[in-house]
Amino acid sequence: MATPNPSLPHVLVLGGGFGGLWATRALASAPVRITLVDRTNHHLFQPLLYQVATAGLSAPDIAAPLRHILRKQTNVTVRMDEALSIDLAARRVTLAGGTLDYDTLLVATGATHAYFGNDAWAEHAPGLKTLDDALAIRSRVLSAFEAAEREEDPDLRQAWLEFVVIGGGPTGVEMAGTLAEIARHTLPREFRRADVRGARVHLVEAGPRVLAAMPPELSEKTRVQLQKLGVEVHTGQPVTAIDAEGVTMGPARIRSRTVLWAAGVAASPLGRQLGVATDRAGRVPVAPDLSLPGHPEVFVLGDLASVVQDGKPVPGVAPAAKQMGAHVAGAIRARLRGATPKPFRYRDFGNLATIGRMAAVVDFGRLRFSGVVAWWFWLVAHLFLLIGFRNRIIVLVNWGWSYWTYQRHARIIVGRAPPGD
Amino acid sequence: MATPNPSLPHVLVLGGGFGGLWATRALASAPVRITLVDRTNHHLFQPLLYQVATAGLSAPDIAAPLRHILRKQTNVTVRMDEALSIDLAARRVTLAGGTLDYDTLLVATGATHAYFGNDAWAEHAPGLKTLDDALAIRSRVLSAFEAAEREEDPDLRQAWLEFVVIGGGPTGVEMAGTLAEIARHTLPREFRRADVRGARVHLVEAGPRVLAAMPPELSEKTRVQLQKLGVEVHTGQPVTAIDAEGVTMGPARIRSRTVLWAAGVAASPLGRQLGVATDRAGRVPVAPDLSLPGHPEVFVLGDLASVVQDGKPVPGVAPAAKQMGAHVAGAIRARLRGATPKPFRYRDFGNLATIGRMAAVVDFGRLRFSGVVAWWFWLVAHLFLLIGFRNRIIVLVNWGWSYWTYQRHARIIVGRAPPGD
Repeated sequence: MATPNPSLPHVLVLGGGFGGLWATRALASAPVRITLVDRTNHHLFQPLLYQVATAGLSAPDIAAPLRHILRKQTNVTVRMDEALSIDLAARRVTLAGGTLDYDTLLVATGATHAYFGNDAWAEHAPGLKTLDDALAIRSRVLSAFEAAEREEDPDLRQAWLEFVVIGGGPTGVEMAGTLAEIARHTLPREFRRADVRGARVHLVEAGPRVLAAMPPELSEKTRVQLQKLGVEVHTGQPVTAIDAEGVTMGPARIRSRTVLWAAGVAASPLGRQLGVATDRAGRVPVAPDLSLPGHPEVFVLGDLASVVQDGKPVPGVAPAAKQMGAHVAGAIRARLRGATPKPFRYRDFGNLATIGRMAAVVDFGRLRFSGVVAWWFWLVAHLFLLIGFRNRIIVLVNWGWSYWTYQRHARIIVGRAPPGD
Repeated sequence: MATPNPSLPHVLVLGGGFGGLWATRALASAPVRITLVDRTNHHLFQPLLYQVATAGLSAPDIAAPLRHILRKQTNVTVRMDEALSIDLAARRVTLAGGTLDYDTLLVATGATHAYFGNDAWAEHAPGLKTLDDALAIRSRVLSAFEAAEREEDPDLRQAWLEFVVIGGGPTGVEMAGTLAEIARHTLPREFRRADVRGARVHLVEAGPRVLAAMPPELSEKTRVQLQKLGVEVHTGQPVTAIDAEGVTMGPARIRSRTVLWAAGVAASPLGRQLGVATDRAGRVPVAPDLSLPGHPEVFVLGDLASVVQDGKPVPGVAPAAKQMGAHVAGAIRARLRGATPKPFRYRDFGNLATIGRMAAVVDFGRLRFSGVVAWWFWLVAHLFLLIGFRNRIIVLVNWGWSYWTYQRHARIIVGRAPPGD
């Protein structure tokens, strides 16, 4: 049991996502003691969360205990706890299980999904941000097929076989593509009463095109590839209502019992406690070195930080959060040796999105490609980025198996009784 | 979509465990149509459930969707639903999602854990029968170590590091041995404040020895092996009270925040609807061919059936349930060709129990052994019995990895907020 030296300055990190964890790791040899606080006990590889939601991977495949990742870094104490409030004047954070004082604070509590003021939609259209969300969506999707198999009335049966994904960003595209694959390839032979091949997957996007962060030509390729997989793409259709029976988009209506939300993101509510005006999504505008204006001892990073570079916002993606984490660690080291931190600069290495079986799009600025080659590129890149050697092997075995057999091994419904209707 | 022939006699199977599933598979080529009803969507390999509870395996590693297992057996319809009541006179079963008539009924709904009339204990001492149970126990155990790391008071911290397993049968022995391994080998390096090596694991058994179904010499070897792993074994100590702070056994008391129940089993409540007097554990006495006395069209099998053979009860273990399943299928086939079913005869091939890392006991009557060789025997036997080729490979990879590294990959807490105390 190695204990961090109590006489060193205390760096308190809130959030064990890409921002907080990368900052913590980059401070391994710095003369500080670190406490990393997270609500969960694990770091989550969010880019593959949709695979857990669609039964391709198990929860432990894409999550690793934070204290296991950091077991050799003896200047870190990991604490599973929830930050409730921040007292900037006293330099103290109140947690669900106690209080902690800090010399330097990193707020990296990320974002959650948001319903643009329509909180009643949450019940009918669950979002995907945590492992619990992913397991709940998995149960909901698999249970819908089970309900279709039980249902005697053909109309009601079809309502169980209509799936709507709201939001044409990367998560929505991945979810819709994978659901279509499940309905077309994975399940049909296994049902006797419901005609699963008659299942329909709708992707609904308010804006004019899917993957709006990509160049228009790749959005168009994505739309074509989605349609090939069997997804009905509805663009320019803002959702106006969601209830237990379906989704309304102005005059149009899709009858569906399974609606998934991949549209809105709101920053963690902790951001509103930092004494500055947050932006529309609740993000905190930061100084060029990512510190909180007026509080050089506080840094805000990852999805919670609002950073504008060359007139454009830095996107809320994993590479940006990792770069911010490394930058903040550098800023802390610089201050410890009496230097002034440099401003943060986001390096955009490109943009990938997967669509479904053997389909993806890649944008490296001048180099853009899509289809099978892009899918292989996406797969290798994501395997490479997965933390932990063991996870890579298991994920590779699972993917290989899914690819050859069209099966998805994690098709287990837990945590819900069968619906009575 | 192959549909079973509606003019064939209808065999309704309640329960997709070893009894119900083995009966269903043995009727593959019989001139019947079968409906298999289960509350969950999966067949569960219960002998490895404790591995999910102790974070060695993921839930999908030991569970396979029933409709996937039976996808090629075209005379079966799988229905995820819950049987609520049985009308023997009308030959009709009411389910949560509808009603089904039958010509032949198989009741194989198994058993759940029981608290011998002390239902208030359930809250403090969860039992282990389903995947949901296993995931809840996993969260509780991992959260206890997290709470110890947060706790400032040394006495309260130690209370989070005391684990009590109640019941010295196979499940209790496996759980206690594995918990001791986790505390001694898996976690210590990862905690900074709590001294996890000071964790204590207690196994409490009311009777005079653990593994009472085994010969006394193997019980004694099990006790010695458990103590070597660091488990404190308390035999002859009936539990008299369980509350949030610990366990009372007459005059003795163990202060503990984490108590697990592996002591009592009660048969499924459906057994009480069959018009015969059930035994103390709620099991249904059956005719020699496993049919319900007075109702040759109804069979009761698996843990729900009370079968006495040569003056001894047939044990509630997986091999017995599988043999009953095969027997009932044979009885149905015999009747279809006008013959009289033979009486059921349980063949006892022996008894295995694992204790922890490299320790197990094996009883084949004349041949009895324990220790490392027994452990390898246990491992190979269980891999061989796991349904589904893919599961075997993944489980083998996970076990190999755990063995070499002492790590347990599924240490992910889901479904619970961190405790606030």
